[in-house]
Parts: sequence; C-alpha cells; structure tokens
Amino acid sequence: MVRYFLEIAYKGTNYAGFQIQQNANTVQAELEKAMQIYFRNKIELTGSSRTDAGVHANQNYLHFDVENNINDIEKTLYHLNAILPLDIVVKNIHEVNINNHCRFDAISRNYEYTICTNKNPFVLDSSYYYPYSLNIDALNECATMLKEFTSFESFAKKNTQVFTHNCTILNSIWKLENNILTYNVTGNRFLRGMVRGLVGTMLLVGRGKYAVKDFKKILESKSISKTDFSAPAKGLVLMEVKYKYIN
Amino acid sequence: MVRYFLEIAYKGTNYAGFQIQQNANTVQAELEKAMQIYFRNKIELTGSSRTDAGVHANQNYLHFDVENNINDIEKTLYHLNAILPLDIVVKNIHEVNINNHCRFDAISRNYEYTICTNKNPFVLDSSYYYPYSLNIDALNECATMLKEFTSFESFAKKNTQVFTHNCTILNSIWKLENNILTYNVTGNRFLRGMVRGLVGTMLLVGRGKYAVKDFKKILESKSISKTDFSAPAKGLVLMEVKYKYIN
Repeated sequence: MVRYFLEIAYKGTNYAGFQIQQNANTVQAELEKAMQIYFRNKIELTGSSRTDAGVHANQNYLHFDVENNINDIEKTLYHLNAILPLDIVVKNIHEVNINNHCRFDAISRNYEYTICTNKNPFVLDSSYYYPYSLNIDALNECATMLKEFTSFESFAKKNTQVFTHNCTILNSIWKLENNILTYNVTGNRFLRGMVRGLVGTMLLVGRGKYAVKDFKKILESKSISKTDFSAPAKGLVLMEVKYKYIN
Repeated sequence: MVRYFLEIAYKGTNYAGFQIQQNANTVQAELEKAMQIYFRNKIELTGSSRTDAGVHANQNYLHFDVENNINDIEKTLYHLNAILPLDIVVKNIHEVNINNHCRFDAISRNYEYTICTNKNPFVLDSSYYYPYSLNIDALNECATMLKEFTSFESFAKKNTQVFTHNCTILNSIWKLENNILTYNVTGNRFLRGMVRGLVGTMLLVGRGKYAVKDFKKILESKSISKTDFSAPAKGLVLMEVKYKYIN
C-alpha cells in the first residue's frame, strides 16, 4: 500500500462543512465521489482539519491509501479537478510514509477571520459585515493574551467529546488594512468552534461591551457561559496546515 | 432644484443588470426603492454607465434632483446603505451643477476583466475560469493595437442603435500576477458588450486560434461576423468613471 496526502482548497459557502455526513453535501463527499470516478474504486479519505459549514480553506489535507504508486501526479490532478465542482480544487498530491497521518501529524494550523466594518459588496461570502467602531488596541491585547493560556475550555462547544482542551497558540494578531480587519491565529490545534468563539467574544471587547480584563476572566473561568457569541462561519478561512515532512 | 451624483459600487451577480427594466430586479431598481424609502418621495435616477447582467462595478454614478439641499450627507449615506441590500453600496453623494450630467459628462471609463487559468474557488463570482495556456505577448499586441483604432463597429452588438461607433482607447493592457490574468482598459466611452467582445476575441488570439493580424483584420472589417465570442459577464468590473469636476 502507498499513502498519499491530498492538498486541497475550497470555498465553503455551498457545503454543510468538511466532514462527510448523511443527507447533506460536504467537501469530503465531493472528493470521495471524484476519487471514485477517477480511480474506479471506492477510496476512503481521512481528513485533517474538519471545518464547519460555510468555513473556507485555502489549504487543508486528507490522506488515502492505494495499492500502487500514482504514476502521473499532474495527470491525476488535472482529471480530479475536472471532475470536482469549481469551488473545490486539489492543489497537490504528496506521497508520504504509510504511517503518516494527516490529522495527528499536523504540527500547526493557521486560521484567518475577516471583518468589514464598511459595507463591501465584493467580499460578502468571505467576510463578516460588522458596522461598528472597534478598538484595535483592545482587540490585540486580547489576542496577545491567548498565547499565555493553554486550556481553552471556555471556548469548547457543549456536547463535544474531546480528550483535552489544551491548545498552544503560537501567533495571534489583529490587523487593519483598507477598512478590512483580519484576525490571524496559529495554534498546534483548535477545539471545535474555538476560533469563531474567540473572534465573537473579542469583538465584544473591541466594541467596549466587555473590558479586556473580562476577557481574561472568561478564559480563566473555563466555563462556556459567557462565550455564547460565535462569529459567522463565512468570515473564517483555514489558511495553512503544517507538517514536518511537507514543505 | 439641486443636483447630486450618487457614487455607488455593486456586485452584479444577483442582478439583471444596472438599468431599470420590467419583470427583473436591477441595481437601479434597488437604488430607486431605497431613495423612495429614505426621501419619502419618488426620485428619478439617471445612470452613467449601464453595465450588463452579472457585471460588477467598483465605481459607477447616477444623478438625481431634489428640491432642497441635503443637509447631512453622512447621515443620508448611512441610512441609504442600511436600506440597500449588502451587494449594493452608496460610497458618496456629490453636489454638482444643475446642468451636469453623469452619462454625458464622463470623460473616461475604466474596466477590468479577470481570468483564472488555474482553478480558484475564491474568485468564482468575479472571474472567468479559462484553463488554457495563453500567449501574453500576443494578447498585449492586440491590446496595444486598440489604441490606434477609433471605430469599433466590429464589436458593436447587433440591433443596438447608437449615434456613433467611435471610441478612444486611452489605455489597454494585460497583466499576469499569481496565476490571475487581468485586462485593464480605459476609454472615453464603450459600446454595449464591447469590452466582453474584445476580451473574448483577444483570448482566441492568446490561445493561438487567431493570429494577431487576424485580430487587426477584424477591427478593420467593421463587421461583427467574426466577433461572436463574448467573455462571460462575471469577469468584468467597471472600475472607475471620471469627471472633470469630481476627484
């Protein structure tokens, strides 16, 4: 058997999320369909980072095993992309060791959240229109604080079973350029809904509804009671997933 | 009476074009509806550049007359934008002379057409996916040639009554950046469908189906027989409309 990593990008607008599910179309379902058409065989795909419904990805990975080496990667890419809908693209196919795992081996994930404080007709599907005056310094105080925390229980979804709430935030920053505000965050891993919860709660600080110290208390409390506000999916893009063995 | 220019931008995807028409929703219709709600009066709008169904605008203008000066432009902008759908934005309202005309006084229009030769899920609504190898030098030979011509009868739509087919092309260039190809063109005026017809025909030269000299012959022929191919609307953006009296 030979293992490959499928490197993909997608616009999440028209999908019920990344991971395969019954009765709803997902990115993984489209990929499995395309793989089956091209390889004339049902090929099981294991996903790296399960983005929610409406979330986009500039880079995400899945892995799969085949009996024999793929001879012509370029040709395979060409045909898979021709079969797939226009909002999903396979960017590359990487041969890896048979024991490499696209979810467990990822050393970091980078997400970007985009907010327009002015009306902008051209980024409706990929940003959150939030027409309020925001204190960028306060937003960045919150963002920087995240690097000192290790447990993010306050931003875990209810009824989600996870082994640990520990995440290491490596980078976390808000930037304002041409009336477009972006929040960029890198971590070794993220809990389900965590980035959108963090963004939603930080925005309340940015607007002055919470103080920076309230945000700290929320993090310390390890309680989800004050973090009900989640920023909409459409503003979020999974930008990058990193492995030691893939450039 | 006081005359104002309404400076707007819109994503054309969900509209049957700019100009008002029966039985279809247009950008102008949405604007007239919003104006009527805000001013509590039916206000007639005259458009500057009538973009086709699906074409976008980063800048376009309309003019209207009101009995009295608008006291608070900022407040008017705020309310109009709150009433208008998210894909149409009023960027500014300029007071002008009562005899200024947004269509006849425009000294130049700038259009940009975007082509992706690689699959790109993030610009599906605003670019044309054209997965062919293109000769950029040939495209630019055609683009440069346009500046020497004055009559564009070959790129006029059938059954359109116009006073003249004369247009002056001031700037015309193709650029390739990050696998995204753009054609940028400035002219004093354009015939209906002209930019899309030019792009569609130049692309055939770029692919090697026509030679550059064939393109010249088409222009010289003043016949529409060889210019049936029109690039899709979604790739086209009206970028700028210029007036002597507006910065």
